Amino acid sequence: MQSFAAAGSRRVPAKPVIAVVGATGAVGIEILGCLEKRRFPHSSIRALASARSAGKQLSFGDKPLAVTELTESSFDGVDLAFFSAGGSISRKYAPIAVSRGAVVVDNSSAFRMQSDVPLVVPEINPEMLARHPGIIANPNCAAIISITPLWPIHKLNPIRRLIVSTYQAASGAGAAAMEELRESTRAALEDKPYQQKVLPHPYAFNLFSHNTKVDPATGYNEEESKVIAEARKIFGEPDLMVSATCVRVPVLRAHCVSLTFECERPITPDEVRTILSTAPGVQIVDDIERNYFPMPKDATGADDILVGRIRKDLSDVTGKSISLFCAGDQLLKGAALNAVQIAELLL
Amino acid sequence: MQSFAAAGSRRVPAKPVIAVVGATGAVGIEILGCLEKRRFPHSSIRALASARSAGKQLSFGDKPLAVTELTESSFDGVDLAFFSAGGSISRKYAPIAVSRGAVVVDNSSAFRMQSDVPLVVPEINPEMLARHPGIIANPNCAAIISITPLWPIHKLNPIRRLIVSTYQAASGAGAAAMEELRESTRAALEDKPYQQKVLPHPYAFNLFSHNTKVDPATGYNEEESKVIAEARKIFGEPDLMVSATCVRVPVLRAHCVSLTFECERPITPDEVRTILSTAPGVQIVDDIERNYFPMPKDATGADDILVGRIRKDLSDVTGKSISLFCAGDQLLKGAALNAVQIAELLL
Repeated sequence: MQSFAAAGSRRVPAKPVIAVVGATGAVGIEILGCLEKRRFPHSSIRALASARSAGKQLSFGDKPLAVTELTESSFDGVDLAFFSAGGSISRKYAPIAVSRGAVVVDNSSAFRMQSDVPLVVPEINPEMLARHPGIIANPNCAAIISITPLWPIHKLNPIRRLIVSTYQAASGAGAAAMEELRESTRAALEDKPYQQKVLPHPYAFNLFSHNTKVDPATGYNEEESKVIAEARKIFGEPDLMVSATCVRVPVLRAHCVSLTFECERPITPDEVRTILSTAPGVQIVDDIERNYFPMPKDATGADDILVGRIRKDLSDVTGKSISLFCAGDQLLKGAALNAVQIAELLL
Repeated sequence: MQSFAAAGSRRVPAKPVIAVVGATGAVGIEILGCLEKRRFPHSSIRALASARSAGKQLSFGDKPLAVTELTESSFDGVDLAFFSAGGSISRKYAPIAVSRGAVVVDNSSAFRMQSDVPLVVPEINPEMLARHPGIIANPNCAAIISITPLWPIHKLNPIRRLIVSTYQAASGAGAAAMEELRESTRAALEDKPYQQKVLPHPYAFNLFSHNTKVDPATGYNEEESKVIAEARKIFGEPDLMVSATCVRVPVLRAHCVSLTFECERPITPDEVRTILSTAPGVQIVDDIERNYFPMPKDATGADDILVGRIRKDLSDVTGKSISLFCAGDQLLKGAALNAVQIAELLL
């Protein structure tokens, strides 16, 4: 476990120098988009990526933004660094960024379960930002989308048990996986062979159990274990009973989740609807008459998590259990937007 | 409620005259395929469809099979009729077929919950065929795929609670929906507009809550209500507690289900694996090392329901709850194959 005691609980200056690590990736591009759209105050922005991507031109608003190669000296003078280039890059470079004076918001799983690193969803546990070791972890996308709508319910009537089945988009595996979904589907429609390169299974008109390693001891894959462990850490409920089944579906960039949860006391769908109607980061889409409920196509590009199908869990005899269905943009609230919201709280 | 008392519990002769109603539909074609592949004994086969499809040529084995228009006289001399042309056709013509001497295996939902009509999955409740009023109902596809693997577990350690989330293919809405998935996806890849005609929502790289009517009183759609009611009827357990969330995903013809179930007594994943390893109609696909689990692409064209991800439900404190994931061909075991298996038992 690494310690960044030297970083104290450093704050970010009012007009920071910003670095985006992994700027050419699916999440990196959305981070730049969120910073621009939300008019995030800054004095300058550095787009950092691998040597392969260095020299590429991105844009920030209407201005060009040149990509430079990530090196140790990339962080000289940087106040705020967003990392979104995978766990090994974060493990190597985030401590360097912190040692050069930056606060890091890390989108990888590298530091999420480190006890002194806050794991933050701004709608849930912003108070965790009061103390941090220079690094703040951005949670797993499926975890964010599952638990953000549950928090306001949990505060009023504690959730004791949660069963999650996910419908996860290609974007969670990066821009190359999105391209693989498009290309393999095009090949399938033309009756041509396609050899997948990014994901382990054919993706065109197919779905498969999440492509992370499965623990032989538990039978759970890493994605499911993240959802479970992160839900507990973010809620501050180490004993929360959670089960997850994570599935990759042939959708481009918004995740859906089917949730069934049991509260401490009886609860009705109407109470849930009332609670969620004023919940931050959540929008109710629950139109029974039009059969209109949360869908990836509507969640794509939306800041809010869409919640619908709010109803009694008919398998429950106690009246304490509710089922609902959510859709959230994996690249926005599931990643880039949540990271930028964290940074806004650090200013 | 209709009565077919006159039909007694009529049996089917050893070489029946067979009619397939809805022969040009997605399920009808598979019924013909199953009859041929399984060398179902018959003296002749009539392919019946609407006036619009009459005159089309199908094939049975290597022989052509002309489609004729469905009329009241279509059933003269028919011993066994498979219906797969929707509820209203079944409600109108199945009683006529029975009155002309046929036994009907009906794939629609028209008669499923009628108390004197057996609702049969041959692996579960073949004994229900001993008494029938001339009509036997073939269950809903999502119900068959969810409960067939659970039955051998239920017999040994009764299931008390079941939570289902489905990942349902286009085929459940018919051949036109499959074509809409292909065409709308092609349009999306070419950045062209597409106006959906069959399903209520855009389908390309999207998913949506099942397109059946939602009951405002319960918040459950008709597909979910079928899964719940049919599971109870087929298991002969009117008090079985079941909850279902039915979702249409952009997959062509195999359904998947994420199941969490609670037994009367503690149960382990290894016990489940042992039970299912010899269960009829079920194949275990649970390769943790290769991350290889049930997928629509492997279930497509397969007779068996594929079962994997067999593991402890980590949200459960009692040790009685298991989670698993299944894939089954919606057109085969979910419809045509199950219907032909029923007919085999009637011979």
